[in-house]
Amino acid sequence: MEYFKGMEDKGLIVMEGVKGGHDGMNQSSPKRFRKKKQEQLDIPALANDVRTGKRTSLSKAITLVESSNTAHKEQAQTLLQELLPFTGNSIRIGITGVPGAGKSSFIEAFGTMLCKMGKKVAVLAIDPSSSLSGGSILGDKTRMEELVRQENAFVRPSPSAGTLGGVHKKTRETMLLCEAAGYDVILIETVGVGQSETYVRGMVDFFLLLVLTGAGDELQGMKKGIMELADAILVHKADGDNMRPARRTVQEYKQILHFLQPSTPGWVSASLAASSLEKTGLDEVWKMLETFEETTKKSNYWTVRRHEQTRDWFHTMITDHLVDSFYNNPSRKVQVRDLEKAILNGQLTVTQGVNQLFQE
Amino acid sequence: MEYFKGMEDKGLIVMEGVKGGHDGMNQSSPKRFRKKKQEQLDIPALANDVRTGKRTSLSKAITLVESSNTAHKEQAQTLLQELLPFTGNSIRIGITGVPGAGKSSFIEAFGTMLCKMGKKVAVLAIDPSSSLSGGSILGDKTRMEELVRQENAFVRPSPSAGTLGGVHKKTRETMLLCEAAGYDVILIETVGVGQSETYVRGMVDFFLLLVLTGAGDELQGMKKGIMELADAILVHKADGDNMRPARRTVQEYKQILHFLQPSTPGWVSASLAASSLEKTGLDEVWKMLETFEETTKKSNYWTVRRHEQTRDWFHTMITDHLVDSFYNNPSRKVQVRDLEKAILNGQLTVTQGVNQLFQE
Repeated sequence: MEYFKGMEDKGLIVMEGVKGGHDGMNQSSPKRFRKKKQEQLDIPALANDVRTGKRTSLSKAITLVESSNTAHKEQAQTLLQELLPFTGNSIRIGITGVPGAGKSSFIEAFGTMLCKMGKKVAVLAIDPSSSLSGGSILGDKTRMEELVRQENAFVRPSPSAGTLGGVHKKTRETMLLCEAAGYDVILIETVGVGQSETYVRGMVDFFLLLVLTGAGDELQGMKKGIMELADAILVHKADGDNMRPARRTVQEYKQILHFLQPSTPGWVSASLAASSLEKTGLDEVWKMLETFEETTKKSNYWTVRRHEQTRDWFHTMITDHLVDSFYNNPSRKVQVRDLEKAILNGQLTVTQGVNQLFQE
Repeated sequence: MEYFKGMEDKGLIVMEGVKGGHDGMNQSSPKRFRKKKQEQLDIPALANDVRTGKRTSLSKAITLVESSNTAHKEQAQTLLQELLPFTGNSIRIGITGVPGAGKSSFIEAFGTMLCKMGKKVAVLAIDPSSSLSGGSILGDKTRMEELVRQENAFVRPSPSAGTLGGVHKKTRETMLLCEAAGYDVILIETVGVGQSETYVRGMVDFFLLLVLTGAGDELQGMKKGIMELADAILVHKADGDNMRPARRTVQEYKQILHFLQPSTPGWVSASLAASSLEKTGLDEVWKMLETFEETTKKSNYWTVRRHEQTRDWFHTMITDHLVDSFYNNPSRKVQVRDLEKAILNGQLTVTQGVNQLFQE
């Protein structure tokens, strides 16, 4: 295909694995993509290649979705629209954790186990703090050595785009592409600080929180409200000398969860332990996920939530657009800054400030 | 004053107390106010009367702030601007509670105690669920019989306005009026369901959560994230046979709070018990509030938070304005509804939907 050719030497296709041993990773950046002279993309052909499960095509499609080039954006939407009927058939799992909880080693061990069970597993990352200069956290390929060697795995670094809204949107659309490519399990890793957890909770079916033993101490550093977003708390690194404290910690979390509102109506947030080192407890995690899917599909909350998430996504993007176009106006920015100063100095009421902004 | 005269028979001044024994309540609704033929208000005189602590003038000023009449709105802003230099000198306390926790009886007992200590106490209520038809929760005067008889108390029913944004704004402005009138303690009661707690947390210095004994059971019905908003949890109705379980519950909450992030940086959220019936523990609540004020003023977080709250309020009102003017356009509403349908049916991507809305 003409399209693929010109790109290889420009670094778009990093996943050379299709020709030999691949590493399941594609690190091409939208930046490089942008530099390319615009080419005529055969969108129906690309859509077909994505659907038949060609990993290079999936990578290319994702890069297209991540591109900020206007022509690419339009092509990406045409592609997505073609693929929409084939999306939705996965379980979408968000994974977060306290620092040091071992998210990567969990995803590596858990994802590999699922691949060996015959599942197709896609790993995405959402990192609102990553800058345009790159610095993708999954760039360190060695972190998921075993998983990326699996025939059924697809590991995608986090998009290196700017704003949270942007990353949010791109991760959602990347997820849809992976579903169209036949991936059964989508693991979305939250990275960095800030509000990424809330965003991920808003795009997944199940949200898993990884913690370590010693709940009392470590919870001090845990983000506000994070436990109430979780459908399960997994006490990780439950191996060796850690086995006993892990079991106690599981009980402590059970108690705490009992006090909190469940994240998913009709589902009692679980507390369990696992070790990625010794590969224990991982099958229980999968069994729990199967039970979750069964339960929420039976109650129809599975579909209700997905519809809600899509609707929220639409309305959030409308609000983002309105707010962005307002603040992107440089004279507005100055005006807002000056009014804010006057308000904080007690010269103007907040309402007067808003009225002054919009009376014209 | 001409202004006051015409209104008395129209029900604007319900607080007849200025002439005889008053009940500390003003239940006039903006609706009635709107019906009045527009009159020339002497804003500087009204501002002066508010400042000298005339309760009828404060009531009138609040009614003006709550009015949706365009002329009134402008007058209200002029009034507020005049009074701004005299605002800010109170401790703003938000009070919420699980159903049946006895918020009103607590406010009655606690407020009366403060009045007897020489404090000026204003009680406001925020009720986003209340409709235009009225249904103010503090309408039932008998609920705070003793408090409303206090010379130093001012009890204002919740504004009966429509939207949450509106109530939010009105309660903030009412709070400022009360401060200008010299009230030292502002108690804001959250009422109804929904997000009122988050809104109140965004406008107060201290947020108090009232609960009952038996944490384990009752917490099941507690709103998500509510405990992490609280600066203190008060186990209420700690009297009679309830004394012992209350002490145990206080300890249980201490443990839970230990696991959660504090609501105010530098302040360890407290857990304590009180009885409004036997009037025990109320002085401890006040001592705690004094310590809180001292601590956060020393760290300067007191001022930092208030500035943040004002800034947030300004930006929230900007966003609200942008979103409202977008959705208030009837043709937009239809367009959004149709696009939403197409998106949920899988005919359009979310991005395409947003693009279609804004490409014109």
